[in-house]
Order: sequence, then structure tokens, then C-alpha cells
Amino acid sequence: MTIETLSENKSFGGIQGVYKHTSSETGTDMTFAVYVPDCKAGTKMPVLWYLSGLTCTHANVMEKGEYRRFCAEHGIIFVAPDTSPRGEDVPDDDAYDFGKGAGFYLDATQEPWATNYRMRSYIESELPDVIAANFPVDMDRQGIMGHSMGGHGALTIALRNPGRFRSVSAFAPIASPMNCPWGDKGLPRYLGDDKQLWREYDAVALIEDGARLPDLLVDQGRADNFLEEQLKTPLLDQACSKAGIPATIRLQDGYDHSYFFISTFMGDHIAWAAERLNT
Amino acid sequence: MTIETLSENKSFGGIQGVYKHTSSETGTDMTFAVYVPDCKAGTKMPVLWYLSGLTCTHANVMEKGEYRRFCAEHGIIFVAPDTSPRGEDVPDDDAYDFGKGAGFYLDATQEPWATNYRMRSYIESELPDVIAANFPVDMDRQGIMGHSMGGHGALTIALRNPGRFRSVSAFAPIASPMNCPWGDKGLPRYLGDDKQLWREYDAVALIEDGARLPDLLVDQGRADNFLEEQLKTPLLDQACSKAGIPATIRLQDGYDHSYFFISTFMGDHIAWAAERLNT
Repeated sequence: MTIETLSENKSFGGIQGVYKHTSSETGTDMTFAVYVPDCKAGTKMPVLWYLSGLTCTHANVMEKGEYRRFCAEHGIIFVAPDTSPRGEDVPDDDAYDFGKGAGFYLDATQEPWATNYRMRSYIESELPDVIAANFPVDMDRQGIMGHSMGGHGALTIALRNPGRFRSVSAFAPIASPMNCPWGDKGLPRYLGDDKQLWREYDAVALIEDGARLPDLLVDQGRADNFLEEQLKTPLLDQACSKAGIPATIRLQDGYDHSYFFISTFMGDHIAWAAERLNT
Repeated sequence: MTIETLSENKSFGGIQGVYKHTSSETGTDMTFAVYVPDCKAGTKMPVLWYLSGLTCTHANVMEKGEYRRFCAEHGIIFVAPDTSPRGEDVPDDDAYDFGKGAGFYLDATQEPWATNYRMRSYIESELPDVIAANFPVDMDRQGIMGHSMGGHGALTIALRNPGRFRSVSAFAPIASPMNCPWGDKGLPRYLGDDKQLWREYDAVALIEDGARLPDLLVDQGRADNFLEEQLKTPLLDQACSKAGIPATIRLQDGYDHSYFFISTFMGDHIAWAAERLNT
């Protein structure tokens, strides 16, 4: 549970910190960012998890996400983990969409990945304990959100852990890794050929198999180059409709896959979370 | 006047662009960023210049400055130039605070710097013509702001060009390069030993010599490591008081020199500009 402070900067009245700890799940040091709004001593605040996309670390959303203004306004702690294990001894791949920076929030079962690539257990179990032990969080009020691969992560983690998250939202999530090239490439290498196991890491399949969310907000840019081939938003829309999950899926004209898009709608997503966390 | 588009992304309803052109002043290609809010065809909007600090390019404020929300709200075009000439043939220095990334918004007179290091003329004359020719700007409504070395740039350019800028503000400006180590190092190498010339590049000296601003907003973090030795905010405060320049100089508890500080107060500075540009 020991964490090392790498940096702390005052911002919007609170503290944006970057911390490091040794993860038993990944077998590596892991870095994460936490924003804690200003609050009275003894106050416990709700916590909003943000899972990042391919190639990202904790730093992308910290630098470009424009969330602090809204977290300060609503009194919400914002946690941004890394997207994969890191380090010289961690197996990797030359591609941007597999290996380091591309952990897909799963527990790999195949070698050489199985030892370190345990981002599911890291995000679902280990890091929450670290956050609970070190920050003024009310763990009964959690929300989760993410972008692209991190949208996939947010959706699948929320679907597999019913009741844990009062709010769930995503920017341009990978709706169904089993039905896109990113998943076709990554799932067999991380998980082997048993497609039943893949279904635990596919939001659409989890919904088909009976998992539910209280409701859902998704923003998706219509000018996103990945929309048609990789993200498959319509599959998520259909699955939610069929399952009766109230999903607000907004297609935004002219917006792409970048943080210029995410930052535009971050305020809406944090307001969505605040409505569900601060009541 | 030809500019090349390097990227354009929709953000907060407008377009964040990055452009390149060949500068006759610096003798190099120069990159700059422009944010244009959504507007009716034919509308001309005021323009707000943002000059960045040591080591920065156009990208730092574009990624971390959190200005687009407010520029969209107030209908203001935001221009972020680079801080120095760039390129393999441009003379440089190993230090972060001299040479590339450290143009100090001056026209160098000393070799080997004089050929390329002409950021004063570039920002005062050449780039405004490029902006006027390529974007829907109303050049009768200009404001200027900057951070650190860019705060020095904003103040000195505004002081030397009375009437051009309706609004002037700065984050943690270098108030008096003639009275700090950054200036002690850079001014003689760029400008030679004639201290009369140095006074054109020192806000406090310009005010002492009779230059004036309509008014001024400055935010300065009290936890800024550079405050005492390099920034010398009290000298600016004293000079404004003596000259009768209405200066709102706010010392902000706990804030440092970073974009975590700048982004916190960016909304205030754009509101300050909007009051003066949109009337």
C-alpha cells in the first residue's frame, strides 16, 4: 500500500498528484494520477475512474482532459491509471496496439504476457485498495469512464461488477473487441483461442450474456477515423436497446478521436457522474 | 502569406489548427497554433495573442492551457506562436534558457544570433499580417497575454505599441530581465553591452521611460520557484503604481509556475480580455 509521490501541483484549488507504487498484480512499478479537490479536513469524496486509450499513460488525460475544473466544482476525486505494465523486463510488441500501452484491461492467460499483463485485476482489485488507503475517498460512491480502449475497459469493468459504479460513461469506446481488428489481433495473443473467455472482455457480449448497467452516457465523434472499423458504436447501441439499458449515445458532428474531442465533452461527463455520485 | 495546414481538429464547436509558414524575419519555417470559434460566415472576431515561456512551442498552451472553452464562449480567436526560430541551421545553446526555445521576443543584434533570432519583428509585424490574411480576425480588437518569458513578451510588446492592444495580461511574467539571471545571461549575448537597448526589452524599464498600458491583470503563484530570483513581480507592481497604470496583480497561494497554475486562471484572463475586446 506504500505509494511514492512523484509530483503534486495545486490546480483549481485542489492537488493534482502523480504517484508510483509496486504492483503485485503486474509485477512492476505502476504510475497513476489522482486529482483531489479542495475540501474540509475529514471529508470523503466520491471517486471517478478514467481509463485511457491505446498508447496512453496516466499523463494524457491529466494534461489534455480538462477535468479538474469540473471535479473541483462537483467535489469529485479523479483517478487516472496507466494502460499497461511498464518496464524493460515487460514483454512488448513493436505495434502501437499490442503490448505496452495496450493492456486492454484484461488478465492475460498466454505466455509471455500472462505474468505482467494483469490490468483487469490491477484496476478492479489492487488499485482500488491503494486509492482507498491513501486518499479521502468514499468508495461507496464510485463512477467510471474511459476513452477508446479505456471506454472498453470502463464498460466491461462496470458490467462485470454490478452495483460497484453508480455512473458509467465513455468517449468513443471500443464497443466490441471481438468484432474489430484491434480485438482480432490482441484477444487471441493475450487470451488464447477460447472465445468464451473473450466474452468477458467485450461489452456487447457481456450485455448479451445478461450483464447490466444502470444507465450509460457515450459521446462518439462522427469524424472519428476509427468509428466504422474499430469502435462499432451501433453494436453497443443495439445491445443496450435489446437489453433495456437506458443508453444516451450521442454522435457528435465533426469531432475526431482526439483529446480535442474529449475535452469538449468532459464537462458533460463529469456532470453526468456528479448527478449519480453526489446524491 | 502562404500557410500550410499541419492539423485541424474540432474542439468546443470551433477549429483548433496548427499551421506552418516560411518566415522572412527568422529565415526559418515557423509553426503556430490558432483556435477559431464557431461563427457565422463573414463574422470577424477579436484576436488574443498568447506568448509562451522558456522551452515551449505553440503546443504547450494548446494542450494544457484550457482556453478553448472560454474562447468559444466569448467568440475570441486565440493565436499561440512558437518562442524562437527552429531548425538544424539555427544557432543554439545547450542551456534551456538561451537559444532555441528562449527567443525572449527580441531582435538580436549580435552574431551568431542576429540572423534568425528576430522574434520581436516576427511577433510584432510579420505574424500579424499572416493572421490577418488567413483568419476571420478583426485586427482593431487585439489582446495579448503570456506566461513567464511570454509574459515578458506580452508586456514589452504592448508597452512598445501603444493603442494596439485593448487588453494585456500575464501569468508569472519575467517583470524585469535586466534584473534577473535569465536576463543577465541572455541580454548581453543577444544584444551586446549597450544597456540602453536592453531597456526596450524590459517592462519595468519601458514603464520608467514613459510607456503606458491601459490596465493590466497579472496572476503570480506564491509557490513559484522562480518568483524571487527571476520573475521580480514586486518591481512591476512598483513601476505600475508609480506610473499610474491600474494593475491587478494577484498573488495566488500554493500555485507554482506550471500549466496546472495557468489553466486554473485562464478563464479569468480570457474574461478580462473579453470585457475589453467585445465592447
